[in-house]
Amino acid sequence: MHYREVETKREFVARLEPGADWREEIETLADEEEVDAGFFYALGAVQDAELWFYDQREKEYEAVTFEEPLEVAACVGNVAWLDAERFAHTHAVLSRPSGQAIAGHLHAGTVFAGECYLREFEGELVREIDGTTGLDLWL
Amino acid sequence: MHYREVETKREFVARLEPGADWREEIETLADEEEVDAGFFYALGAVQDAELWFYDQREKEYEAVTFEEPLEVAACVGNVAWLDAERFAHTHAVLSRPSGQAIAGHLHAGTVFAGECYLREFEGELVREIDGTTGLDLWL
Amino acid sequence: MHYREVETKREFVARLEPGADWREEIETLADEEEVDAGFFYALGAVQDAELWFYDQREKEYEAVTFEEPLEVAACVGNVAWLDAERFAHTHAVLSRPSGQAIAGHLHAGTVFAGECYLREFEGELVREIDGTTGLDLWL
Repeated sequence: MHYREVETKREFVARLEPGADWREEIETLADEEEVDAGFFYALGAVQDAELWFYDQREKEYEAVTFEEPLEVAACVGNVAWLDAERFAHTHAVLSRPSGQAIAGHLHAGTVFAGECYLREFEGELVREIDGTTGLDLWL
Repeated sequence: MHYREVETKREFVARLEPGADWREEIETLADEEEVDAGFFYALGAVQDAELWFYDQREKEYEAVTFEEPLEVAACVGNVAWLDAERFAHTHAVLSRPSGQAIAGHLHAGTVFAGECYLREFEGELVREIDGTTGLDLWL
Repeated sequence: MHYREVETKREFVARLEPGADWREEIETLADEEEVDAGFFYALGAVQDAELWFYDQREKEYEAVTFEEPLEVAACVGNVAWLDAERFAHTHAVLSRPSGQAIAGHLHAGTVFAGECYLREFEGELVREIDGTTGLDLWL
């Protein structure tokens, strides 16, 4: 296991903008405030969603799109540098009016409403390609 | 996007009381300690649950009730003022013995066991009606 | 409700090791750094998973095993002492390529990739048997 002790630099609460992209909203906050490392969690609702699933054998992502309103029951993620841009690695659990839950890596989703809490850490997290998994990982 | 830098005032861990209401337990903690703004996450189990789903077109909530024991696999939310009362906006992912997940806005649920971590921020979060979504939002 | 104000001692971000057990990785971090109380959340993917569901009437856990790759859409939990060992009480929401979500108490799961944020609190959390629920609870 790789781990690092971190120190919190700043904390933010954010209300995501209806009509904007869920992940891009978090990245916009990170860019505006120059957050180079952080963890966040969030809740709310989206108007649609594109989830990505990583095929652990083929080492590539597959996309599934949901063109329907969904609650964001839980969303967790972190902010790090990836290919010279701030990237919000975002996982989410979404749900339909029946209560049925769908979940995965949230590539995109149009915000209906969103409430996010972000902690910024001192220093940077930088993603680099990992040979074992094929993923871009930090530390 | 609307956001605010916040500073942590206090932190709490709580064990929710069996038989009590999940959301009310968090609001009771907020009332007793006069928490006017905060974010929390939690896990545990409930004896039943009432989930609400927001109809983004009709701008009203619909309720779905589950009269069965459920794990609380993930619960995230925040504490703010709403209509002169402290309100714990609570989303949760629940699950059945088969592993099947259901999720949404947790209006109510009878605690079987619950473990919660709450961070209190300086200042207040106050919810007011938002014309675009019909929801009560802060910031 | 039982609750306690806590103070953060240290914070850690961790990248869990592919092939290791998800929960044991968090416990290893806790052991190495002598974390006696803390809360964490995490995201990633596993190669398989064993979820436990607590039968609230029979007061015993039932296991369900999933022998397939799954995203870890959300994972929340805490570190406490249980029977003279550090125990990471871990709940998780997992998902299949279709987006279907499964969730519960994560007893075990082989890490494919995992990103975790852990906060350590001053003092200890110690689990002891609770007569009402049959569970090992702190506070």
